[in-house]
Amino acid sequence: MDKKTIVIVGLGLIGGSLAIALRGFEDYEIVGVDVSEPTLRFAREHGVADWVTDDPEAVIPQADVTILALHPKGIVRYLEQFKDRFQPGSLVTDVCGVKTAVMEAAKCLPPEVDFIGCHPMAGTEFSGVEHAFGEMFRGSHLLLTPRPESTKEHLDFMARMADYLGCRDVCPTTPEAHDAMIAYTSQMMHIIAVSVCDDEKLFECRGFEGSSFRGCTRVAALDVGLWTQLFSMNRPALVEALDRLEANLQSYRQALADGDDQALAKKLTWSADRKRQMDLPGPDLLQ
Amino acid sequence: MDKKTIVIVGLGLIGGSLAIALRGFEDYEIVGVDVSEPTLRFAREHGVADWVTDDPEAVIPQADVTILALHPKGIVRYLEQFKDRFQPGSLVTDVCGVKTAVMEAAKCLPPEVDFIGCHPMAGTEFSGVEHAFGEMFRGSHLLLTPRPESTKEHLDFMARMADYLGCRDVCPTTPEAHDAMIAYTSQMMHIIAVSVCDDEKLFECRGFEGSSFRGCTRVAALDVGLWTQLFSMNRPALVEALDRLEANLQSYRQALADGDDQALAKKLTWSADRKRQMDLPGPDLLQ
Repeated sequence: MDKKTIVIVGLGLIGGSLAIALRGFEDYEIVGVDVSEPTLRFAREHGVADWVTDDPEAVIPQADVTILALHPKGIVRYLEQFKDRFQPGSLVTDVCGVKTAVMEAAKCLPPEVDFIGCHPMAGTEFSGVEHAFGEMFRGSHLLLTPRPESTKEHLDFMARMADYLGCRDVCPTTPEAHDAMIAYTSQMMHIIAVSVCDDEKLFECRGFEGSSFRGCTRVAALDVGLWTQLFSMNRPALVEALDRLEANLQSYRQALADGDDQALAKKLTWSADRKRQMDLPGPDLLQ
Repeated sequence: MDKKTIVIVGLGLIGGSLAIALRGFEDYEIVGVDVSEPTLRFAREHGVADWVTDDPEAVIPQADVTILALHPKGIVRYLEQFKDRFQPGSLVTDVCGVKTAVMEAAKCLPPEVDFIGCHPMAGTEFSGVEHAFGEMFRGSHLLLTPRPESTKEHLDFMARMADYLGCRDVCPTTPEAHDAMIAYTSQMMHIIAVSVCDDEKLFECRGFEGSSFRGCTRVAALDVGLWTQLFSMNRPALVEALDRLEANLQSYRQALADGDDQALAKKLTWSADRKRQMDLPGPDLLQ
């Protein structure tokens, strides 16, 4: 391989979308690795990467950058299995939604292989390469958990890659802060969505839902294997976030049950102001 | 007035959007009524209706259809105040999110004036005529609570109007069933959104949110006056819905805290299947 190479391991929804989105990035060749023959065939037929292979041994030792786009436990296993095969001086990164466990696992790498944890705040409720699309990362945050010793060259690479993907920004943080925040901003949203869908009235309410319902429950159709791992690998932070949610819901329930409209209006004013202060841009305009 | 007339009382977000969307509907002239001079000026300058006035007395007695696009308590007051001014044989309807209280209030109308409760499952988190847009109702459900004695002519009118607005369908129901379902599909979504925004971590999480967070919290920037009324006029059903939510959230919290990944995966499979079975189309594809 003469060109510089980015190897993406795992051509699922995220890995496939990354491969599509990264084609043409600088002078890198994009190589996809997967174990599934149907996935590789789909990727070949749809030009998901510059080329694809089922043989990581053939490409990882020459990769300048290796992106592990696997489920969290798959990443941990892969790091252990391939720790001596990555090219010295190369960068290894990932895309998964928990960072403490992944950064811990990456300590098995030899000192001459850099690892920067990465979590693109993008995705859909679908999975598999056939749902991959190159625009997935546009406007999303790219969360990074570099090592203290990660090189400027590699951090710069991640920033240029984020830019090419169309990300809104790059947000560096620590693994612990990442996991605590993501328990709230992402994992809690998924627990809310599935809990709302557990309601006994779900099916009889067909035809009575608006966009607020669709927006809140969309992610309930989740990839069970992936999210079981994400939740269980971030259990304490998620339980804590759910306890905070419950207290806040209870406070609204109490204000309602008390029948004090002034107190209710005061609470709503406070919350709505907080939301306006956040001023989040988003694709979801319709109620 | 020679042409048939639809009078829309209240040119806010919903009334204004209705006026824009209904222009050109059959041979009806669309007349807007509001008490606010800036609203009327904006409506005049932007062609929000065929014409607008601040004088309901001048238009309501000749209206074939009167749509009350006010806050719930405003609708109740308006019905009482104008009950003897509506044209015999005409149809009065509304657009608000609670129906039991409104249908009760409409009993003050003389028997020759029909009333069909109406709730378009559409809107945005903004308010005011300047945020009105004619496409608002496209793809949304139009919920109707007719009286038992509502005429076929008026029900047909509502169906044709829904069609012209681009609604997905018309869903007739009883006021009580409406309020119980809406407590879950709409009001609970708003309580979740404000409760999530009450989290102490809200502002420090800026930059760490994805589309699931934006989708869930979007409606938190709500119109406090309106939603205080909607919540308080549907208190028992809403408290009940929140109690069901809490039980479902607690069940997930317990499965997490127990550390039993198999049980967690089983629960997630069940919930995700329910969501897929609902198969809700929606504008919100990005996570």
